[in-house]
Amino acid sequence: MGSVRRSNSASRSQTTSNWEVLLELDVHGGGPLHSRLRNALLAAIQNGRLPPGTALPPSRKLADDLTCSRWVVTEVYGQLIAQGYLEGRPGSGTRVAWSDRTAPQPAAAAQASVPVPRLDLAPGLPDLRAFPCKEWVAAIRAEAQSIAPSDLGYQAPGGHPRLRLALADYLRRVRCAHAAAEDVIVCTGITDGLMRVCRALASAGLGAVAVEDPTWPRLRRAVATCGLAPVPLVVDEEGLRIADLAAHPEVRAVVVAPAHQYPTGALLAPARRAALLDWVRRVNGVVIEDDCDAEFRYDRPPVSALQGMDPGRVVLLGSLSKRLSPAVGVGWMVVPEGWIDAVHEQSAPTPGPSTLDQLAIARLIETGSLDRHLRRARQRYRARRDALVAALERELPRCCVSGIEAGTHLLLTLPEGTDESAVVFEAMARGVRVWALGRHRLLGAPAAPGLVIGYGNLPLGRADEAARELAAVIARANSRAVLN
Amino acid sequence: MGSVRRSNSASRSQTTSNWEVLLELDVHGGGPLHSRLRNALLAAIQNGRLPPGTALPPSRKLADDLTCSRWVVTEVYGQLIAQGYLEGRPGSGTRVAWSDRTAPQPAAAAQASVPVPRLDLAPGLPDLRAFPCKEWVAAIRAEAQSIAPSDLGYQAPGGHPRLRLALADYLRRVRCAHAAAEDVIVCTGITDGLMRVCRALASAGLGAVAVEDPTWPRLRRAVATCGLAPVPLVVDEEGLRIADLAAHPEVRAVVVAPAHQYPTGALLAPARRAALLDWVRRVNGVVIEDDCDAEFRYDRPPVSALQGMDPGRVVLLGSLSKRLSPAVGVGWMVVPEGWIDAVHEQSAPTPGPSTLDQLAIARLIETGSLDRHLRRARQRYRARRDALVAALERELPRCCVSGIEAGTHLLLTLPEGTDESAVVFEAMARGVRVWALGRHRLLGAPAAPGLVIGYGNLPLGRADEAARELAAVIARANSRAVLN
Repeated sequence: MGSVRRSNSASRSQTTSNWEVLLELDVHGGGPLHSRLRNALLAAIQNGRLPPGTALPPSRKLADDLTCSRWVVTEVYGQLIAQGYLEGRPGSGTRVAWSDRTAPQPAAAAQASVPVPRLDLAPGLPDLRAFPCKEWVAAIRAEAQSIAPSDLGYQAPGGHPRLRLALADYLRRVRCAHAAAEDVIVCTGITDGLMRVCRALASAGLGAVAVEDPTWPRLRRAVATCGLAPVPLVVDEEGLRIADLAAHPEVRAVVVAPAHQYPTGALLAPARRAALLDWVRRVNGVVIEDDCDAEFRYDRPPVSALQGMDPGRVVLLGSLSKRLSPAVGVGWMVVPEGWIDAVHEQSAPTPGPSTLDQLAIARLIETGSLDRHLRRARQRYRARRDALVAALERELPRCCVSGIEAGTHLLLTLPEGTDESAVVFEAMARGVRVWALGRHRLLGAPAAPGLVIGYGNLPLGRADEAARELAAVIARANSRAVLN
Repeated sequence: MGSVRRSNSASRSQTTSNWEVLLELDVHGGGPLHSRLRNALLAAIQNGRLPPGTALPPSRKLADDLTCSRWVVTEVYGQLIAQGYLEGRPGSGTRVAWSDRTAPQPAAAAQASVPVPRLDLAPGLPDLRAFPCKEWVAAIRAEAQSIAPSDLGYQAPGGHPRLRLALADYLRRVRCAHAAAEDVIVCTGITDGLMRVCRALASAGLGAVAVEDPTWPRLRRAVATCGLAPVPLVVDEEGLRIADLAAHPEVRAVVVAPAHQYPTGALLAPARRAALLDWVRRVNGVVIEDDCDAEFRYDRPPVSALQGMDPGRVVLLGSLSKRLSPAVGVGWMVVPEGWIDAVHEQSAPTPGPSTLDQLAIARLIETGSLDRHLRRARQRYRARRDALVAALERELPRCCVSGIEAGTHLLLTLPEGTDESAVVFEAMARGVRVWALGRHRLLGAPAAPGLVIGYGNLPLGRADEAARELAAVIARANSRAVLN
């Protein structure tokens, strides 16, 4: 529709002076027609191109000219009148009411939208098209109708009591966590939670925190931002090599994802879980458990949270980012009694997620809506994973697929010598987004090159296409490597 | 101080049963005395060691026993009364009001709803009953129905482009700010924005930031949390005394509220605005402009934001907390070009407000809904202010009312020698919440005692009742002071 509109209005660009204005912003494209019309008018008014007093076309006429519904025009006029940019005078139509001599304004730049890849296989994202919009709106509506005025004041420190209680119940039930409401602190996500814990650790005098290698780059960055040195420890097929902690006597805290390591997909072996808890007791330290997507597991029994085995020494971090959407910006931490004051202290000054959102999430948990969403998502992800694994094994028989038992991504090991960055770059140029394994590494590890491929947003029928595209790009990268 | 406290209370541990309770938690140590006292009391109440109905020592006695200021005790009692753990009964002192029979299953603790004072005159809150729930739900619904799946992924750094654009438009139009969308960073509130700026300043090597005195305690705390020394500068009736900056050559940044200082209500005088801009250019520094409620002004023409006069040296901070509700958790910063990368860097790891909320707010701005809400609120606040000022002048002719030209609070100066903490505490015991001026001061200022009284939530018909209650409490405090 957008392009039709554009050529349409372009063909009229000579006829009236207002059209020029519209045309200019139309090119910035994107969004529904009424926003584009509004932006165009706004820009023109702000640039002084439509000086105060200028009469605008009657809505019917403009709608005809744009071949759009008259609603679009009256809506835009109405908005701009409400904001004081236009004024509606009975009998004399709509006129510009606003001017700003100081403008040359580059505002439109920020509107330029980020292009979306044709096949977005970036890891760490849930199925964005499956976000339960209807349930979300219903929950917000129900909570807004019943919210106590006092809940619209400053947020309760640590989160709304109702959400803390709902999360404690949920985590006890689903993750075997040992959590009461007052152990739970609501935050904006795992990184936010990690930073609050790290600031508490730093103010208690710790200087270093061990992190998995490879792992999310943002977790390492969060540790460093808080003034702590991230100490990388190698992850193998049994998860983090706990024994390596012995080489770092200065380390008393470690960030670990026992249920599903990212990006390797490893499960921390039972012996290592025990060794980790031994270690943390011996050094009187803290384990920070990253539990980002434990509900998505397909071929193995559920693994309970480590936190339940030693709630006095393990901080449990989780979020809705992979369970629902990162856009929601809600996470949680279950904090040992000995640390909770310090973490509250670090959390105190800034607010968390909107109270209405917190209540809506509490409602989604209380009503079982989140459970149902997760169950549906798990089924969908399993089918997508099966399709992608089958397609990759067919198209790329020389590459090894691993880490597929859980989560929403897998690891594709590339043939020795493949330039993974080149593969990622060329795939993106073909509209396929994947991540290089290398960006997750801190140690200059001798491990093989690889791709981290998310399938949360891969429609079932397009797994073959994705595998073929990747196979083509990988083949090209390798043939070039042979030539060089 | 901590160790004195501990041995002191230890020596009394045999005398009354309550002391044992205090002792136990004191050992967990850390934090200011009032938090330790609060925690000790809370724990004792939650453990059932202080069953409902237990009378607590009068604040004066407990303060004597602890050899601490009486403020510490009244503050803690006041907090716990506000939270429903204690109740203050006139004539019979303070008693435990809370019990949990299911303890040690402590989940219910988090649920205990915070009782709302009968008359909540805490400053800094908008009219919570006027939150536009319907418009909010409609905006969320509209945005949820049209949101692009990519907007449900990880949040755009700095905020959603559409909200940044809407805010830039709004701030240009309403605050005469000099802002394009890319200068705007969405954050969770003024404190969050201040902390991001302070972290950027700290990493650029600054060591101190000047703050107004008196001001919001949380602003000072935010500065200190970022590792910067807050340097208090006196505020008089013309606003911050800019000339005093000369005595602090180490200071190159200052937090100031030129349009409406909190809590004095002062407007920064034109000559001082000019002097501030001179200063910031001379020291090549940064002015951090707190613009929290500039739209609410009644008896004077609108004052434009300082930022518009030197956008290269002024950071503009604002939020919806007083314009809509603190529960929404949305604020903004307009950052000079020279600082924006550093502030983005400090903001990078953690998400901001939910993307759907950001889009809903953009819609409220675009459609003029926020404008209409603010216009209605302004009318309501003006009427409430007029009623409260008239009632206070009638009931308390010896007290001076000031700072009434703008905002949603006023300052009531108390007769010399009045114990403002006692007034606040006893008012709370009678269901009226106000704030002591003293808690806003960093300097041991010689200024007169006072109350900061918000009228955002004061129903029009209850101004007389509020003034009468305060008059009674103040009279009692003063008659006691005379007796002592």
